[in-house]
Amino acid sequence: MTAEVPAVVPGLFITLEGGDGCGKTTQSELLTDWLEQRGRTVLRTREPGGTDVGVAIREIVLHHRGEIPPRAEALLYAADRAQHIATAVRPALARGDVVIQDRYLDSSVAYQGAGRVLDATEVRDLSLWAAEGLLPALTILLDLDESVARGRLDAANKRFDRLEAEKNDFHRRVREAFLALAAGEPERFLVVDAALPVAEIAAVIRDRVAALLERRHP
Amino acid sequence: MTAEVPAVVPGLFITLEGGDGCGKTTQSELLTDWLEQRGRTVLRTREPGGTDVGVAIREIVLHHRGEIPPRAEALLYAADRAQHIATAVRPALARGDVVIQDRYLDSSVAYQGAGRVLDATEVRDLSLWAAEGLLPALTILLDLDESVARGRLDAANKRFDRLEAEKNDFHRRVREAFLALAAGEPERFLVVDAALPVAEIAAVIRDRVAALLERRHP
Repeated sequence: MTAEVPAVVPGLFITLEGGDGCGKTTQSELLTDWLEQRGRTVLRTREPGGTDVGVAIREIVLHHRGEIPPRAEALLYAADRAQHIATAVRPALARGDVVIQDRYLDSSVAYQGAGRVLDATEVRDLSLWAAEGLLPALTILLDLDESVARGRLDAANKRFDRLEAEKNDFHRRVREAFLALAAGEPERFLVVDAALPVAEIAAVIRDRVAALLERRHP
Repeated sequence: MTAEVPAVVPGLFITLEGGDGCGKTTQSELLTDWLEQRGRTVLRTREPGGTDVGVAIREIVLHHRGEIPPRAEALLYAADRAQHIATAVRPALARGDVVIQDRYLDSSVAYQGAGRVLDATEVRDLSLWAAEGLLPALTILLDLDESVARGRLDAANKRFDRLEAEKNDFHRRVREAFLALAAGEPERFLVVDAALPVAEIAAVIRDRVAALLERRHP
């Protein structure tokens, strides 16, 4: 598995990362509204589940009753990624749209690699092979103390699926893995304290995205 | 993706390979009967579809209406492999059983790598990563001229699925890929002319399997 050099694309690919309950959905909506008000076409999407094949894969991963070994799970997520990037994200970027995606490569590495039993480098290589080397122009990491995140989720009385039901210790390891990834690629990552007020986080994100758009289309 | 050294297992892992219509099912049944008559416990299995997760994956790959990009398809097959090997094949081998499997690693390489657009080495690495390096003790390649195979399938008025509906030229390339794989690993492969009478093929296979069992449990 060798990572390929990504082709230059006219659109802008932005991903949101962070543990469950960190506010990715809210910030994704606010950013989308702001971009659309500025006349940009936005594709808001997610993995797994961004395509019909992805929905079927998501069903298998989240609701299968028996054991799914770590490699099988990683490969299912990678298959969803390959499908989603090739049939939804790349066409949108080729049209010049902005793609805002809830979870991507870094979630795979943080959850599967650091959180579970697989080697992080292997998981990253697998993901990049699936996506033919596509990396985001910007990855927003909404960083939140795992006990705060759990409190938010409990307060919302959210039904927990397989992953969400894992223990606090697991979420702590995932958070550390996300922060390590961000430290390794400071150009690509924007790390925001997700305990800040929603409007404040949104403003920080908008500033960075505006700068990116300005740099591309001055 | 690095291939691991497979752990030594007490059972015997046999795979059958070859294009559609070459007689894998028939020979698999005859070999199973013969082994069971000799007191061996046999797991007859297949990919995709050997587990419940595999059945769901098979549904996606074979009956999805839209486009499935080559990498997504390869990853779905690899996910099925990871699930099947870890939850069905390895436990059977650990019990000392004989596993007879319709299609494995070599089908992935021949169909996806040689027959389609992906690099054969990448597909092989992906498969071996999924299976944690498990290779069969014996792979029986039922080799058949692709026009004979098509004639058999047409005569049986078999409903063609996505893969089977591909053209003769594709089947020729797959056959050549299988033969090249066999030439590269003569110790693992037994190549049999699938145009021979069924009983004659079965006898050739039995001789090789008997020798393998003798060598393992003299």
